[in-house]
Amino acid sequence: MRIFSYTENGASRIGVVTGADTFQPVADVAPMLPTSLRALISLPDGLARLRDAAGSHVGTRSLQDASYLPVIPDPHVTWALALNFKTHIEETGLITSNEFPHLFIRTPASLVGHNQPLLCPPPEIATEFDYEGELAVIIGRGGRHIPVERAFEHIAGFTCFNEGSVREYQRHNRNFGLGKNFERSGSVGPWLMTIDEFGDPKKQRVITRLNGIERQNAPLDDMLFSVEQVIHYLSTGYTLRPGDMIAMGTPGALQPHPGEDLQPAGRHKIWGQVNMKPGDKVEVGITGLGVLANSIVGDENASYHP
Amino acid sequence: MRIFSYTENGASRIGVVTGADTFQPVADVAPMLPTSLRALISLPDGLARLRDAAGSHVGTRSLQDASYLPVIPDPHVTWALALNFKTHIEETGLITSNEFPHLFIRTPASLVGHNQPLLCPPPEIATEFDYEGELAVIIGRGGRHIPVERAFEHIAGFTCFNEGSVREYQRHNRNFGLGKNFERSGSVGPWLMTIDEFGDPKKQRVITRLNGIERQNAPLDDMLFSVEQVIHYLSTGYTLRPGDMIAMGTPGALQPHPGEDLQPAGRHKIWGQVNMKPGDKVEVGITGLGVLANSIVGDENASYHP
Repeated sequence: MRIFSYTENGASRIGVVTGADTFQPVADVAPMLPTSLRALISLPDGLARLRDAAGSHVGTRSLQDASYLPVIPDPHVTWALALNFKTHIEETGLITSNEFPHLFIRTPASLVGHNQPLLCPPPEIATEFDYEGELAVIIGRGGRHIPVERAFEHIAGFTCFNEGSVREYQRHNRNFGLGKNFERSGSVGPWLMTIDEFGDPKKQRVITRLNGIERQNAPLDDMLFSVEQVIHYLSTGYTLRPGDMIAMGTPGALQPHPGEDLQPAGRHKIWGQVNMKPGDKVEVGITGLGVLANSIVGDENASYHP
Repeated sequence: MRIFSYTENGASRIGVVTGADTFQPVADVAPMLPTSLRALISLPDGLARLRDAAGSHVGTRSLQDASYLPVIPDPHVTWALALNFKTHIEETGLITSNEFPHLFIRTPASLVGHNQPLLCPPPEIATEFDYEGELAVIIGRGGRHIPVERAFEHIAGFTCFNEGSVREYQRHNRNFGLGKNFERSGSVGPWLMTIDEFGDPKKQRVITRLNGIERQNAPLDDMLFSVEQVIHYLSTGYTLRPGDMIAMGTPGALQPHPGEDLQPAGRHKIWGQVNMKPGDKVEVGITGLGVLANSIVGDENASYHP
């Protein structure tokens, strides 16, 4: 089952995907269920009830016309991992712990949904605005001190994540802080695919395209810390809550394609990494799940506004 | 004016402090105003309307009986500063940028209100559970690209913050991650004091006591980055929102008191720093504002619970 959040007439709603371009509003097939995906997941039998209700329906609405929101617009927290793919650790030359995952937090304001524009900072603020294609986990049943071998029981499903980053700010100090939290700098979507349908992410790949050209393509079994290990680690100090998201980190860049005249990008001089600019289109796909697409527009708000 | 959030019969409410031990529920003096402090602050004239309505009332309720919530229980984000006092930078020997503030994020789940117990991790998880007495800013009017000289126009008021930290986890990797976000490990309160009444924080001091013994006592004009500079910096990439909080960083420890047989604490061997344990009582006071007090209890949730 694939479920997504969208906005209609100023209200937040959820829909069930029923075909290549069709969906059914949850309010139509199951009017007793909540209209927020976080609230739906919070019900112990929420996904099962929606599955029962949606099974017999054919989609009546077009996905192309939907105004997507972030899959979970209002999570209690969105955790994100730095340096969790060996290829990304190698290309940056940065150091991370082999013993403990490298975690930071993203605000809701830093994320948009599928098909919504990402904001590129004006050049006087920053020029290194980068995509990071990632798998994101969405927690279903909350819990504390979750053993690795029971972690999958706490997952509602998965989605695609573009962990858009402003590199100059990320380097301002030891913690990434604002560099990972520019307004509308990242995205999450298009939908949550439930774990019973998606299965074990280790069998899938993450693929990032900028303007149609593949820039990342890596197997999801190349993580330093697996989904199960990160869920266990977080739960030693924090009670995971339904709707919490965990972005699992980005792989290294592909080498430039034959004939491309690319210069290495950023302070780490990464070959095949390309900064995003207004007018670009970025896509993060997870095989077996779907593709999260966003255009890039300039952030016009460069002057004081109260 | 001093305003606080509390819970009563399972509902979140706000009250206005009217005397040393009295308050008035906002719902009684101004039933048309919101029952959440974030929503009240979000109204352009919310604080002014409450001031008009509360002016003529005498408090009927006892503060001692109130079940305090965090001042803003549901902010869009709580930013916090690391290494923002010269005395704390010196005692840790850590390096920070002199050019850009050092920022990270705390989740709502990591914070409790005044008089609520803080949870001390069990010793098999961590033993270095530390207080950090701090001033916190509460944003009133939101905004982007806020000039330093207009920053005060965007502040609703101030409060006390205990930025409780689990040091072992904080050191697990480059970003602090979970080490600053253990469940109920910090606190904020007791109330928001409006900026018109509190004035410029540079004239005040922050004082931390553990079991009645003073452990931190520092002027708030000793910050590396001032409140105004941090508001300006954040607003270059993020649109500040009403109710956002910024914890401004903690000063260094006082030297041990004469006759005390203290050993230096933690990896940085800080004289006068004392870890918190179950049974302790910690207080963070800001002169001219009030005192945030919390007891410490052991976190009993050391085994798996879904």
